[in-house]
Amino acid sequence: MLIIKAGGGKTINWDFIAEDVKELLKKEKIILVHGASVKRDEIAKKLGSPTKVVTSPSGVDSVYTDENALEIFLMVYAGLVNKKIVAKLQAYGINAVGLSGIDGKLWLAKAKKDLLIKEGTKTKLIQNNKTGRVEKINTNLISLLVDNHFLPVISAPAISYENEIVNSDNDWATAVMAGELGVKKLVFLFEAPGLLQDLSNESSLIRHIPKEKIEDFVVYTQGRMRKKIIAAKKAFSEGVETIYWGDGRMKKPIFNSLKGKGTVIK
Amino acid sequence: MLIIKAGGGKTINWDFIAEDVKELLKKEKIILVHGASVKRDEIAKKLGSPTKVVTSPSGVDSVYTDENALEIFLMVYAGLVNKKIVAKLQAYGINAVGLSGIDGKLWLAKAKKDLLIKEGTKTKLIQNNKTGRVEKINTNLISLLVDNHFLPVISAPAISYENEIVNSDNDWATAVMAGELGVKKLVFLFEAPGLLQDLSNESSLIRHIPKEKIEDFVVYTQGRMRKKIIAAKKAFSEGVETIYWGDGRMKKPIFNSLKGKGTVIK
Repeated sequence: MLIIKAGGGKTINWDFIAEDVKELLKKEKIILVHGASVKRDEIAKKLGSPTKVVTSPSGVDSVYTDENALEIFLMVYAGLVNKKIVAKLQAYGINAVGLSGIDGKLWLAKAKKDLLIKEGTKTKLIQNNKTGRVEKINTNLISLLVDNHFLPVISAPAISYENEIVNSDNDWATAVMAGELGVKKLVFLFEAPGLLQDLSNESSLIRHIPKEKIEDFVVYTQGRMRKKIIAAKKAFSEGVETIYWGDGRMKKPIFNSLKGKGTVIK
Repeated sequence: MLIIKAGGGKTINWDFIAEDVKELLKKEKIILVHGASVKRDEIAKKLGSPTKVVTSPSGVDSVYTDENALEIFLMVYAGLVNKKIVAKLQAYGINAVGLSGIDGKLWLAKAKKDLLIKEGTKTKLIQNNKTGRVEKINTNLISLLVDNHFLPVISAPAISYENEIVNSDNDWATAVMAGELGVKKLVFLFEAPGLLQDLSNESSLIRHIPKEKIEDFVVYTQGRMRKKIIAAKKAFSEGVETIYWGDGRMKKPIFNSLKGKGTVIK
């Protein structure tokens, strides 16, 4: 089984992804996870509640999620973007079923209401943040679907042990899911060829990262990209063997990633 | 098997519905269908694109759906409202899975791009309307879920034969679904005790309607309510034996409907 996570950027090409998925499904079971951050930010702005990004004391960016932000998250991730991807895949003859982490308690999370953030030189505590960290997976529902030739197309939010809807990091959840399903290979598709040494220079691609050294590469990441490193670490701790960071904008995005044309971490 | 359709009104009480569903699931398989029109209208307004209702020459109201309206529809029905209902049901220990008609081609529709509407005394043709009429059901996906103790929570939009997302009438789709699944009883929950002779008087409830005479009762309906009559007719033509129109605001909404406390059509 292969899990593919595609980012929520505008230039991610879902036709190319669909072509590869269609081909891969002939030999392998697949789960697709997707983001929707760009569209979310766009709709949030239109609704007069622009996305607020906060930074933890250790420098990791995340989205501040009050009830209003959570509703926008639900609308864009679980509604608009998820269903458009599902329809697109179906146009390629792929039997896609879109789910959020809430459905069937697919992604069960520990709510993390308190959030320490850095504001300038100060540290501040935010309370009642509607986020959570995914800890358990309903592998039963996923297996039921993939064993019956459906392709699950999954995205946050997740559901907490207390049955609250919580914003959660898709990459982290993907790592936990890989662990529980015994998946050995993960493909993450970005709007870049992989991890770059110099963000402004696409030819500065880092081709190989030994998994033990993943944390050393934090220096090449910014903002939310740091979460990719945290998620990669988590995935390896869960038993994943190889992670591929590849380009979601180009033809054959998944095949090229698997061939090592992006960044390979193992 | 029982199919329950609950409207998208603000006073529909989902705690009461969840209590009944939980009880009923001990003995019966259930599918839940829901609306979200009130929330959709609210978000559409906030986004500066208020819902446009058009009226057919025969007097049936429907929503004009351009690309923008369709995106709002997806956000609110398949995202916000569907997932909030799913989380609510899970808080009652119900293993709910939310799906749109797009997922797994659950609701396959014939696209109806041209729409004749009445504007004052004139008749006008609207083109490229993104709507469709559900004709086929992926009963395979539904059976897979219900046979494995999941409760499907379904809503429009549907998907067309050409893999386009299309707005579609939930009540009509519910009728088609009942037919294909061989369901004999349908419960529709409104923000009213049932069909009223006089809309302003809740004690003017019509208790029984012989199914052959359903069309005579169009005189007691207005606007979108007319679609309930059309859907009821369709359901009977598909083999449904009894339709219950009941109050979704009161305790025991489903049990009371089945006991005949609302309008029973058979």
